[in-house]
Amino acid sequence: MTESWLNRVNWATDGLVPAIAQDAVTGRVLMVAWMNREALKRTAESGEAVYWSRSRKKLWHKGEESGHFQKVKEIRLDCDKDVVLLQIEQIGGIACHTGRVSCFFSKLENGQWQDTDAVIKNPEEIYKNE
Amino acid sequence: MTESWLNRVNWATDGLVPAIAQDAVTGRVLMVAWMNREALKRTAESGEAVYWSRSRKKLWHKGEESGHFQKVKEIRLDCDKDVVLLQIEQIGGIACHTGRVSCFFSKLENGQWQDTDAVIKNPEEIYKNE
Repeated sequence: MTESWLNRVNWATDGLVPAIAQDAVTGRVLMVAWMNREALKRTAESGEAVYWSRSRKKLWHKGEESGHFQKVKEIRLDCDKDVVLLQIEQIGGIACHTGRVSCFFSKLENGQWQDTDAVIKNPEEIYKNE
Repeated sequence: MTESWLNRVNWATDGLVPAIAQDAVTGRVLMVAWMNREALKRTAESGEAVYWSRSRKKLWHKGEESGHFQKVKEIRLDCDKDVVLLQIEQIGGIACHTGRVSCFFSKLENGQWQDTDAVIKNPEEIYKNE
């Protein structure tokens, strides 16, 4: 299969674009990570989200350590072709490394960031096999 | 009011973070733009989305040309404190400069990006006062 669709993406000078993972059922925005060309290619081919870890400088098959894989239902690109939006099924119901459903658990209230969402599972329990 | 909450954001070396605008009612992800400290401050103070235009290198009060302002219902930050998520009411029901509801109208199907969503209003009509 041709990969010309990958050339249509406006990769930044560092070769990356932000990728949003949205719960396909609830519509909740779960996390934002980064993708390079290889990450997006593998995501499309495998049907599971693969990102580029900027801190570890390597491909990151989401769930490889936590078991919290993301089954990809749909891949979209925005009008500037520089942001990817994934509709996903979040295995385990936890996207965040803190053990919460979503990484966006901090809410601005009265000039302060307030943590709003419950921790579903203790991170030590999630990453116990590391 | 103290602005220490702005210091909690992990601004990138260029002073920016990505900001996602999500429709507070439908849950649809409408667009992603960028914010610097001043943009986020103004967004919080005014209750309308203000971004940093990387192309024009200036603050961009979304809707200032199109009339498609975004009323901000909630501001969240992710666990890495480097992505902002806005819950908004999209005035005019159009977030995209192409005249569509959302900027994410391009969908990957059979190895091609397919435009899926209807143009609600002709961009020439939207930006006629420019």
